[in-house]
Amino acid sequence: MSNTLGNKLRVTVFGQSHAPAIGAVVEGLPAGMRPDMEALSAFMRRRAPGRDATATARSEADAVEIIAGLNEHGETCGAPVVGVIRNTDTRSRDYSNLYRSPRPGHADFAAWEKFGDARDVRGGGQFSGRLTAPLCFAGALAMQFLQEKGVAVAAHIARLAGIEDDAPDPVHPVFPLYAPDAFPVVNAEAGEKMRAAILEAKRAGDSVGGVVRVLATGMPAGLGDPMFDGLENRLAAALFGIPAVRGVEFGEGFRAADMRGSEHNDAFTVEDGRIVTKTNRHAGALGGITTGMPVVCRVAFKPTPSIAIEQKSVDLQTRKEIPLVVGGRHDPCIVPRAVSVVEAVTALVLADMILEGAM
Amino acid sequence: MSNTLGNKLRVTVFGQSHAPAIGAVVEGLPAGMRPDMEALSAFMRRRAPGRDATATARSEADAVEIIAGLNEHGETCGAPVVGVIRNTDTRSRDYSNLYRSPRPGHADFAAWEKFGDARDVRGGGQFSGRLTAPLCFAGALAMQFLQEKGVAVAAHIARLAGIEDDAPDPVHPVFPLYAPDAFPVVNAEAGEKMRAAILEAKRAGDSVGGVVRVLATGMPAGLGDPMFDGLENRLAAALFGIPAVRGVEFGEGFRAADMRGSEHNDAFTVEDGRIVTKTNRHAGALGGITTGMPVVCRVAFKPTPSIAIEQKSVDLQTRKEIPLVVGGRHDPCIVPRAVSVVEAVTALVLADMILEGAM
Amino acid sequence: MSNTLGNKLRVTVFGQSHAPAIGAVVEGLPAGMRPDMEALSAFMRRRAPGRDATATARSEADAVEIIAGLNEHGETCGAPVVGVIRNTDTRSRDYSNLYRSPRPGHADFAAWEKFGDARDVRGGGQFSGRLTAPLCFAGALAMQFLQEKGVAVAAHIARLAGIEDDAPDPVHPVFPLYAPDAFPVVNAEAGEKMRAAILEAKRAGDSVGGVVRVLATGMPAGLGDPMFDGLENRLAAALFGIPAVRGVEFGEGFRAADMRGSEHNDAFTVEDGRIVTKTNRHAGALGGITTGMPVVCRVAFKPTPSIAIEQKSVDLQTRKEIPLVVGGRHDPCIVPRAVSVVEAVTALVLADMILEGAM
Amino acid sequence: MSNTLGNKLRVTVFGQSHAPAIGAVVEGLPAGMRPDMEALSAFMRRRAPGRDATATARSEADAVEIIAGLNEHGETCGAPVVGVIRNTDTRSRDYSNLYRSPRPGHADFAAWEKFGDARDVRGGGQFSGRLTAPLCFAGALAMQFLQEKGVAVAAHIARLAGIEDDAPDPVHPVFPLYAPDAFPVVNAEAGEKMRAAILEAKRAGDSVGGVVRVLATGMPAGLGDPMFDGLENRLAAALFGIPAVRGVEFGEGFRAADMRGSEHNDAFTVEDGRIVTKTNRHAGALGGITTGMPVVCRVAFKPTPSIAIEQKSVDLQTRKEIPLVVGGRHDPCIVPRAVSVVEAVTALVLADMILEGAM
Repeated sequence: MSNTLGNKLRVTVFGQSHAPAIGAVVEGLPAGMRPDMEALSAFMRRRAPGRDATATARSEADAVEIIAGLNEHGETCGAPVVGVIRNTDTRSRDYSNLYRSPRPGHADFAAWEKFGDARDVRGGGQFSGRLTAPLCFAGALAMQFLQEKGVAVAAHIARLAGIEDDAPDPVHPVFPLYAPDAFPVVNAEAGEKMRAAILEAKRAGDSVGGVVRVLATGMPAGLGDPMFDGLENRLAAALFGIPAVRGVEFGEGFRAADMRGSEHNDAFTVEDGRIVTKTNRHAGALGGITTGMPVVCRVAFKPTPSIAIEQKSVDLQTRKEIPLVVGGRHDPCIVPRAVSVVEAVTALVLADMILEGAM
Repeated sequence: MSNTLGNKLRVTVFGQSHAPAIGAVVEGLPAGMRPDMEALSAFMRRRAPGRDATATARSEADAVEIIAGLNEHGETCGAPVVGVIRNTDTRSRDYSNLYRSPRPGHADFAAWEKFGDARDVRGGGQFSGRLTAPLCFAGALAMQFLQEKGVAVAAHIARLAGIEDDAPDPVHPVFPLYAPDAFPVVNAEAGEKMRAAILEAKRAGDSVGGVVRVLATGMPAGLGDPMFDGLENRLAAALFGIPAVRGVEFGEGFRAADMRGSEHNDAFTVEDGRIVTKTNRHAGALGGITTGMPVVCRVAFKPTPSIAIEQKSVDLQTRKEIPLVVGGRHDPCIVPRAVSVVEAVTALVLADMILEGAM
Repeated sequence: MSNTLGNKLRVTVFGQSHAPAIGAVVEGLPAGMRPDMEALSAFMRRRAPGRDATATARSEADAVEIIAGLNEHGETCGAPVVGVIRNTDTRSRDYSNLYRSPRPGHADFAAWEKFGDARDVRGGGQFSGRLTAPLCFAGALAMQFLQEKGVAVAAHIARLAGIEDDAPDPVHPVFPLYAPDAFPVVNAEAGEKMRAAILEAKRAGDSVGGVVRVLATGMPAGLGDPMFDGLENRLAAALFGIPAVRGVEFGEGFRAADMRGSEHNDAFTVEDGRIVTKTNRHAGALGGITTGMPVVCRVAFKPTPSIAIEQKSVDLQTRKEIPLVVGGRHDPCIVPRAVSVVEAVTALVLADMILEGAM
Repeated sequence: MSNTLGNKLRVTVFGQSHAPAIGAVVEGLPAGMRPDMEALSAFMRRRAPGRDATATARSEADAVEIIAGLNEHGETCGAPVVGVIRNTDTRSRDYSNLYRSPRPGHADFAAWEKFGDARDVRGGGQFSGRLTAPLCFAGALAMQFLQEKGVAVAAHIARLAGIEDDAPDPVHPVFPLYAPDAFPVVNAEAGEKMRAAILEAKRAGDSVGGVVRVLATGMPAGLGDPMFDGLENRLAAALFGIPAVRGVEFGEGFRAADMRGSEHNDAFTVEDGRIVTKTNRHAGALGGITTGMPVVCRVAFKPTPSIAIEQKSVDLQTRKEIPLVVGGRHDPCIVPRAVSVVEAVTALVLADMILEGAM
């Protein structure tokens, strides 16, 4: 289901960058939940552009109108909750360039192969990072549901342009990881270096990538199903839906490949009568099933493909190489804004697993 | 769908390590395909234990009986193809130990949380690596289908115990990557070092992990759907179904996070009238949609959790810490045998995308 | 998937009778299709109330705004097509009555059991017949797609209040079955009797039911999959999604139960080089797979449960019997308006099967 | 999912009439359930041929071997339960006739259109009624699960060759409807007439159809989801998976179309503190959601298409009409044997809804 995520809590994302609107249909939320619109707005603002010199100049209010799914008291009534965000700041411009030649690193070429001339090239169409706004709308609802279940989700920039943030304790992480309006890192000093690196890349007409780490505490044990519907399968499939993601790893991830079993295995122990592990390299799931330990996942983002530096493309009609300069407003690094998107997607998957696992 | 992989080509895996049988139901293969049973057996032998001193001593013929899905001429007839592998070498032993305390790093604990005392503890039950045999059966059928479509899939050990194999050219990889019965590496010398490292770990009663790289050539462009049903979403979800996988990355993966856009973007060019990229850091998919360039994916495997060294576990009844020594026959490293499993799963996903994308 | 219909052509319906809006997300239409907005409006008008004294007095423009899914030229671009219909004529009224006691024959009671006090009682909430408007929007798009494939779908009132319409020839039906703005019957005289019966029931404060027959010509042979994904499975599951449907039968349906094999079997013959059946009691599918003969299906609608006559209900709080008089504007018979809804749903299923079956 | 039924309790049916085996994979049963093999065998015997002169002469033991899914104590362990039935009594014969010309009323022609010459023509291949044996295996497991939840399912022949059985009280049906080994009717006298009608048709080389009514008591209220995942959608989709089904109706079904609202609506009342309806024309679901009242559903079966009388077919190669005489062993009426199949499918759907609805 290409635009749909989830089994019991299902989100269908729609819209294109320059269509009249973008939005999401959220099915499966329990009836009687009253969406906290202020928390929702605050969460969406974290993703929104225009907060910072490191982000795109496009300024969108990203105000969500909920056009269906609530009863007269503003509570979920069992019907799908539908949020619509109008696309207001869509500059009218000349797209003939994009029709002609695909931007390296973008979905343009693949979209042309799939949809031909009918593809929507305006602002990246349905491949625009803007489509992550409805994901955040849906994720904010999932977060609220999770909160009631004692589950907390938080992410930070683990690495950006080679600069590492401090890693939270995987066994007993302390939330929040940073102040509400702060740059999303644990170590503010590292954050300053990251910001400097972004601005430096921007000045060079270039872009940088990074890694987001997300943690979730309070997940009940015993959720997830072998072999293809476990925590990792579901979370990875969902996270690869965020534009620019190139890798997903759990716990020690690729570092586990260099370890010995005796180093990697987490010993069991008992804490307050509960069976837990002393360390948390397994990151909250064994055999795809949750253990009750924190979920820890790292997500690699490539550098934004839209750069000001001239690149080599081809003319789709003449099939000749041509130089390409990408115009428009672009983030030199999407990673700071992607932090809340990773949280949103993680919350959606975990909420789905809780709703589905209930018996 | 926990035990099922795929949309149009669907595989449902069943069985436990010590049940009468394991197997797979394969739906959606085109009618009229004649399974090449010799190629199938050869492929399954690559995964089978007992080939090498580096693997488990358990010796299973892994002979598949196809009990349904073929017509009287041995061709697929449109009905589900069902392969059954009898579990013959299941030593009768005392499992009270496993009922009592979960093995660190194994699914034992999670299975207990999920299924309670009814879980099948014998040989790891449904979490056994043995369940990858039916995946290979299904994958071999998918491979045969892909071959007819001009798609080739090949994997090798990219890294093991810190030792790197040579990386095939991601733009024009040359298959096969190694001789049919050879250790699955490009660089035989690196392979020798890996084998030595495995044996060394075995002697120490320990285990090692590694990374498998899989490549696929010949995929048509334009397959896969945004946002949650693209190549990466589907391949990642499937690969995390292989026991012990901890990370999946495409192209530059986590290394992309340290690159600049100008370094990472693949310039377009024209080759024999076809639009291609000069480099292949995007690894065959942009926006989740195939570009026609080779698919390149790396899969991280943790070290086998079953080690001879004494570990710390807990008694599930008394909730007290107890020491645990894991007996039985175990691989000191599953990575060499996992190579064909990664190929099988990749083949299943790619074949599914081709069958689904057809229009 | 409760609000979603289809595999490859997928429709997700949303909204409640008195929410800000109702609508549908339509995924899977081929890119490059230009929705014929006039045909779409004309189709939706057939379902709309207010056309006739036999229908509800509620007058809704049912104007659809397509907020996503089209490119700048008004063509489908591969992204989900989203149509939104604002609910404008939602009279503000007192719903305390409905909170208190469920209307016999309505979903009120079941909704209360499922969603408790959070259910949306206003105008029937998500169970309102109004939700069939987005189905017609989606169905009109499917019809346009089918037209290009040479498939035609048409329905009529087969029976209403015991009055039978003429049955079109199941082997060679002639479309259209009636003039564009006419009462949807083949035999105008029977139609007059039906209208009289509806008005008579209305005067009595009562309602009547009926049967809609839908036919589809031009379906390719070989579509549909045994055992649970054949034509009948899919069409029946979809048609039971229309409010008030109580029965679905194909070809001779329940009459087949009284026939002998020699009477029911359709003999094969050859017509213009094509293998066809002389009669069409099998109604276009054998073993769930299309044969290329017309699809013929009958759908039974119960009488509208909303009647003016006093009925017996219970007070949900006190759990005591109370009399109930249902107010508001209601159709004494929904069957005439249901004709286009049956066409829409049938078109969606058939288009889905064509898109899915392609290989 | 063509061969798969259900969301949380999922059954995948496999096999062909003359393949080595037929069987089913049953996923989603709670762990710790001990299949009552005797009850299972007894249930399967009800479907098995050879019990009666009215049925086919083919005699199959239909012994199920459970090859996976149970732990060492014979309990479900959370892994898929797989039952395999070997096809033993498959007479070797000449199928050239069937390759050449399709049997009227059978899936032969549709299978040829779909699978071409690779279709399995032996004994009807995957379209054989024999595939209902694995459905009964799965259904017997579902029945056992339902029993623990207080849900009972029972069916009878409501009508056969125009002869009506007595209808059980839809409000308070009394189970069992008939003695364990009796002909499956409430009114033994009607049963005798039905048997006589079957034998009469058999003597004439012909066949007869009938209607099966299934009832289920004890279903919790509030299960099922609008608009496409309600009780009727799911049950109808599943029941149309049984070979020869031509119609499905709930409660008054097609008779409701001739009723007035005042006749059809079920008044609410209170019984032992529970809100119930006085009558049960709605048959246990309103708006697709269960009300807690008995589920009542009627299923129409066409007469067996395999008749001894000469029929008209075509030669698929020459495309010329040819006469056809169908040989082999065939039921002159499948309805008596279909009774337990209808029960099985109903049980599977209801168990799935209970497992899925749990929260």
